[in-house]
Amino acid sequence: MSLVNVNTLGGNYPIRIAPKMLQQIATSVPENASSVVIISNTTVMPLYGEQVQQSLQGIHKPIYTLVLPDGESFKTLETLNTIYTFLLRHKVDRKAVIIALGGGVIGDMAGYAAASYMRGIRFIQVPTTLLAQVDSSVGGKTAVNHPLGKNMIGAFYQPIAVDIDIDVLHTLPSREVSAGLAEVIKYGMIMDADFFAWCERHVEQLRALAPEIISYAIQRSCELKAYVVEQDEKESGLRAILNLGHTFGHAIETALGYGTWLHGEAVGCGMVQAAELSAQLLGFPRESVERIRALVKAIGCPTIAPDLGMDKWISLMQVDKKSEAGQIKFVLLNRIGEATISTAPIDAIEAVLARTVER
Amino acid sequence: MSLVNVNTLGGNYPIRIAPKMLQQIATSVPENASSVVIISNTTVMPLYGEQVQQSLQGIHKPIYTLVLPDGESFKTLETLNTIYTFLLRHKVDRKAVIIALGGGVIGDMAGYAAASYMRGIRFIQVPTTLLAQVDSSVGGKTAVNHPLGKNMIGAFYQPIAVDIDIDVLHTLPSREVSAGLAEVIKYGMIMDADFFAWCERHVEQLRALAPEIISYAIQRSCELKAYVVEQDEKESGLRAILNLGHTFGHAIETALGYGTWLHGEAVGCGMVQAAELSAQLLGFPRESVERIRALVKAIGCPTIAPDLGMDKWISLMQVDKKSEAGQIKFVLLNRIGEATISTAPIDAIEAVLARTVER
Ligand SMILES: NC(=O)c1ccc[n+]([C@@H]2O[C@H](COP(=O)([O-])OP(=O)(O)OC[C@H]3O[C@@H](n4cnc5c(N)ncnc54)[C@H](O)[C@@H]3O)[C@@H](O)[C@H]2O)c1
Ligand SMILES: NC(=O)c1ccc[n+]([C@@H]2O[C@H](COP(=O)([O-])OP(=O)(O)OC[C@H]3O[C@@H](n4cnc5c(N)ncnc54)[C@H](O)[C@@H]3O)[C@@H](O)[C@H]2O)c1
Ligand SMILES: [Zn+2]
Ligand SMILES: [Zn+2]
Repeated sequence: MSLVNVNTLGGNYPIRIAPKMLQQIATSVPENASSVVIISNTTVMPLYGEQVQQSLQGIHKPIYTLVLPDGESFKTLETLNTIYTFLLRHKVDRKAVIIALGGGVIGDMAGYAAASYMRGIRFIQVPTTLLAQVDSSVGGKTAVNHPLGKNMIGAFYQPIAVDIDIDVLHTLPSREVSAGLAEVIKYGMIMDADFFAWCERHVEQLRALAPEIISYAIQRSCELKAYVVEQDEKESGLRAILNLGHTFGHAIETALGYGTWLHGEAVGCGMVQAAELSAQLLGFPRESVERIRALVKAIGCPTIAPDLGMDKWISLMQVDKKSEAGQIKFVLLNRIGEATISTAPIDAIEAVLARTVER
Repeated sequence: MSLVNVNTLGGNYPIRIAPKMLQQIATSVPENASSVVIISNTTVMPLYGEQVQQSLQGIHKPIYTLVLPDGESFKTLETLNTIYTFLLRHKVDRKAVIIALGGGVIGDMAGYAAASYMRGIRFIQVPTTLLAQVDSSVGGKTAVNHPLGKNMIGAFYQPIAVDIDIDVLHTLPSREVSAGLAEVIKYGMIMDADFFAWCERHVEQLRALAPEIISYAIQRSCELKAYVVEQDEKESGLRAILNLGHTFGHAIETALGYGTWLHGEAVGCGMVQAAELSAQLLGFPRESVERIRALVKAIGCPTIAPDLGMDKWISLMQVDKKSEAGQIKFVLLNRIGEATISTAPIDAIEAVLARTVER
């Protein structure tokens, strides 16, 4: 088993990474828990619910299971209300523990339910997509969407444990694996050149989910994300570097409608665009741009952006919530392994779009 | 101006207490605020909105005003969603500051909106009821109600400032003043015998809102509450003593329907009942019970509880969320100025009800 410790103001907790981890979930439930509430969805629960329930049998506490509909479109205040009603109907008290069993949607929503139910009860992240394992389950960002914006309602709220079972990735559609890998290689690009090079060397095994290899990739990703989160829990500075590729990526996601491209796919393409912009503005080596383009392609993500039209690109990037007062901020690269944050003149953005958008 | 400093893990902030405080609100808005959002209701806004808006004119920032319907019945997820929609429509960003202008309902709800909008933006409490000035605005508990329980959805989230204008109390109905005074004398009972005696001596001036006197009562209440909150921000222990009278009080509120008796009125009566229970169980002096009964009466709160029937009393006190696993916990008094927490046998509770319920 690999272990990563996360130390934040909101609490310290272990990330455990191993095969068959689902069978050990019970060891993360504190002795004084009054009950355990598993929150999952209609896709994940039938696949993995039984293993988790079986693991929990031994601790002799009431176990409740709530199965939500699957999909980003259900990550709403309404579904949240469904969760609250379920908890109150079962008289779940402040000493209960929630287990979020699913991808980032379940993790974000069950996490936020835990943050807000009775002003906060404990929860355990059991992420079952690669994206959730390397990104959303680590760092304590929880949220639901509002019709006027993604993740607009939420809290910084840390879990008491993150339990990652690498076996569950085998039922994940391969596009979801590729999308998760985009966030993996992102960590290398922004802060660990050696890890980036390691990903280049192991890209086939990564896509094939070779146990040792995927396990190390998850561990290293969690370590790097934990490091950033520990420095900047509330996202007032450093944490923003995690958004490499996300400004371009969000524009793609929004323009095409969420779900047309997966988030990680849009980010993969966005990272190529950010690399191009870095070359324009910071003298980031062309050779590094091409390494990035090649790796994004090799993990199975698109490297050519859809043609949204220049005005739409600009306006969609401007409403990005990370941009303050109408200025578009980008995460750029000085070199592979070192990120910086900067605004960009419109003509540089236009030049990058000309190079990266399909014609 | 009186000043109380609150130091919590969630931040340090000043409570400022003075006449004409509304005219100084602008001095609490940080320089780097991107905009200011006043959240108030249809009763308070027409009375005091202009003073606040005028004070804010000088700082030259966008000011948005959201006027909500008045009443506990609007302290819901739906109204919260109205707030989120308003904020998003006006493109309010993470550097904005919310001003909660109103009683505890507005403070709790606008505070929780601030806690959860974009995972937390800054907010200032401007409490306009006595109850909100001495209780709900201090300590960082924010929440909305769920049909299955009061304050079930919320966060511990501290404001950046609490600005208390004692002049606004003059438009408050006198029943609301009495209800607020119940929480004031509560602090004396649980932790400051001298303050309790001071309240006994100044009860007429308190009810008449004599400036020096009400100002000191608010200051001392805030100091005492801040002390408790600093020890136990997340309500895992000590903070429970603030619930003196609340177990009985909640039963009254629930049985009669919220709003029939004001919360402070129910708490006032509940404190008499808790004093009687303390006499039964802990040898709390009968003379002190009578001092409490007399002071509760003198501030204008009821001292005789409605006849709910024994079974209903017990069952309503049992579902109190502070009681774990079916045990009824009470805050009791060893003596005036010293509280303790204890469960009580049913027959002792019945004996108290026999003495305190109207026949
Ligand atoms: N909190 C954060 O820091 C953070 C970071 C990044 C993304 N996110 C959020 O994460 C969400 C995206 O997460 P996601 O990519 O995991 O999407 P997701 O949760 O929708 O999962 C993708 C799909 O895979 C299914 N699935 C999950 N595990 C499976 C398995 N083992 N086998 C087969 N199918 C499985 C899901 O049911 C779903 O249909 C977004 O809402 C995003 O906002 C949050
Ligand atoms: N957060 C906490 O720690 C905490 C503690 C105690 C109570 N509360 C909450 O506080 C709420 C009760 O607060 P409340 O008693 O202030 O009730 P409230 O907010 O409903 O105010 C009572 C009434 O007085 C009106 N009002 C407010 N200021 C006025 C003024 N200056 N002049 C005339 N009218 C005025 C209000 O509009 C309302 O109609 C409850 O929801 C309760 O749960 C929270
Ligand atoms: Zn991402
Ligand atoms: Zn109270």
